[in-house]
Amino acid sequence: MKFTLQHTDPDTKARAGLLETDHGPIETPIFMPVGTVASVKGVHQRELRDDINPDIILGNTYHLYLRPGMDILERAGGLHSFMGWDRAILTDSGGYQVYSLSANRKIKEEGVKFKSHIDGSYHVFTPENVMDLQRSIGADIIMAFDECTPYPCEYRYAEQSMHMTHRWLDRCMDQLQRVPPKYGYEQAFFPIVQGSVYKELRKQSAEYIAGADAFGNAIGGLSVGEPAEELYAMAEVVCDILPASKPRYLMGVGTPVNLLENISLGVDMFDCVLPTRNARNGMLFSSEGTINIKNKKWEDDFSPLDPMGHTFVDTEYTKAYLRHLFAANEYLGKQIATIHNLGFYLWLVREARRRILDGTFGPWKSKMVKQMDKRL
Amino acid sequence: MKFTLQHTDPDTKARAGLLETDHGPIETPIFMPVGTVASVKGVHQRELRDDINPDIILGNTYHLYLRPGMDILERAGGLHSFMGWDRAILTDSGGYQVYSLSANRKIKEEGVKFKSHIDGSYHVFTPENVMDLQRSIGADIIMAFDECTPYPCEYRYAEQSMHMTHRWLDRCMDQLQRVPPKYGYEQAFFPIVQGSVYKELRKQSAEYIAGADAFGNAIGGLSVGEPAEELYAMAEVVCDILPASKPRYLMGVGTPVNLLENISLGVDMFDCVLPTRNARNGMLFSSEGTINIKNKKWEDDFSPLDPMGHTFVDTEYTKAYLRHLFAANEYLGKQIATIHNLGFYLWLVREARRRILDGTFGPWKSKMVKQMDKRL
Repeated sequence: MKFTLQHTDPDTKARAGLLETDHGPIETPIFMPVGTVASVKGVHQRELRDDINPDIILGNTYHLYLRPGMDILERAGGLHSFMGWDRAILTDSGGYQVYSLSANRKIKEEGVKFKSHIDGSYHVFTPENVMDLQRSIGADIIMAFDECTPYPCEYRYAEQSMHMTHRWLDRCMDQLQRVPPKYGYEQAFFPIVQGSVYKELRKQSAEYIAGADAFGNAIGGLSVGEPAEELYAMAEVVCDILPASKPRYLMGVGTPVNLLENISLGVDMFDCVLPTRNARNGMLFSSEGTINIKNKKWEDDFSPLDPMGHTFVDTEYTKAYLRHLFAANEYLGKQIATIHNLGFYLWLVREARRRILDGTFGPWKSKMVKQMDKRL
Repeated sequence: MKFTLQHTDPDTKARAGLLETDHGPIETPIFMPVGTVASVKGVHQRELRDDINPDIILGNTYHLYLRPGMDILERAGGLHSFMGWDRAILTDSGGYQVYSLSANRKIKEEGVKFKSHIDGSYHVFTPENVMDLQRSIGADIIMAFDECTPYPCEYRYAEQSMHMTHRWLDRCMDQLQRVPPKYGYEQAFFPIVQGSVYKELRKQSAEYIAGADAFGNAIGGLSVGEPAEELYAMAEVVCDILPASKPRYLMGVGTPVNLLENISLGVDMFDCVLPTRNARNGMLFSSEGTINIKNKKWEDDFSPLDPMGHTFVDTEYTKAYLRHLFAANEYLGKQIATIHNLGFYLWLVREARRRILDGTFGPWKSKMVKQMDKRL
């Protein structure tokens, strides 16, 4: 696997890069649609591939571990084969879901004991077994097992947790040495910077993570409720320390504006449930701002969903029709909104890349940030 | 609009025909997917058009009347334009839903007063206003307002109801004379034979309906719980009376076996929620029999969904993957199963047509009926 930094914007710290995997190239900056349980909710693989067209999607280790389970995934030959997706996949380490979904979890040095949110059964995740799980799932990019601290978080807790995350990182890397990939292709490993909203901790953590000299690096523990200014401040501190020659992945971020702001700070990769989850609630993102399609004002608006037309749904369906589907609780509404939002997110990062490469990113970003903040 | 009877099978009474509408030709026998509230649940219009590929779909007047309502449909220029479907559409008269969905309805000579299943508001359907509604919706084929009797139904009630349905038919036809189509294309009208499971009544009703000399004729009040033998017996009695030169539509039928049996009795058109509703519960129809994809036995079956491959889902997804989606309650599972079932139903009627035209329908039907009855 190989990452090439292709261009850095002269006005900002925005970068364009190329990440080459055994499942194809990934042009950065990139947004990774979230395919939680081996499915991007409501989207056929064919639509994902041909219409939304991301170079990489994300799977959740926690969800895949519970269903369909490692036995089935291994017998299928890994997640790519199981779900019929032959481009790149990244899996998280399951940590975030253990903290957010499990009603009952105990974090110790050894690992985390938790209760399944599905049937209440007990399970343990350790840095070692989470590496094993990610070998079995077989994503192209796999993540370190970390503790994602909540917001707000006391300094002392954040500091102790950060050190544990660093110790867990060493254990993850040892385990990866012992257990090779299973399916004949390479898996790149990304450790995760923690440190809550404390600059001093973020610096320490970024230095430790950079020192691990992994293929790429991630920034975790953000987009958990902190103000956007804190998010940007942390991303800036960390990006200035992480090596420029390696891809930088900001986990769980964010709105279209968040994406552009963080791209301008030097982030290359993003994932977030926002475009898909909000789509299912009737919220559409666009270049001109956000739309709540459930509003009565769209009831007789027979204009196309989005005249920009990033995906087929934008021109095949009208606002009035989509509004009707939401009013009648027809699932097709959620499907349409999901494809629209993902199509827009992918357009946004591709356009950002194009602007970085042709040197017009700075002014374009300033204009877009203003426009996209509107409610239509 | 024009119907041409192209061929009649020498062994059975099966027919192949061509129905020409202002929204394209309909080759019969045909199965019409049900698009209840201006959407075939979980299926994009593009998939419906390019993958499932029916010449005609069905909309429900009752549902469309309640949501989005006639005002919106008229301002959209009718249902075709509202939902983005430029092939033919048939609407039912709303009668069936009034009887089956409304908790509270009063049937009188004048019409039916009912309570909306959505918000409990009161509404009245009469032969006259239902014709107006169907003018506003603008389907290519519109249906008479009838009473669909339940099963079982006493002879006396069935007889009185049938006569009322006949009187309503006259009122429907008078109204259609008064109110022309709204959108510049033709609408063909089908009256409906009633009479419950009584041969004598079915004969009387078929004669009355045939005497109306409408564009086509429908058989209603079946597939409401009666044994399959009664369904076939009634269809046979009625088909022998209805004129051969006009299309015959058996409403609300049925299983793949029901389709072939009724085609062999001379029925040309079908609609049913079975392939779509059962798909959402994990039941797949195929040439080899039915599958409950939720069964554990499919958990590690990595073979394609259906090697016959009538639609893209059959070869792009495996049984194990679809089983997983149902186990994890992912909506994509319902989408896949729906496209599979509709693809199979459309293949089945197209293959029946091909067999009728080349003279091999009889033996093929006997073989298929046996095969499709299996549980896999």
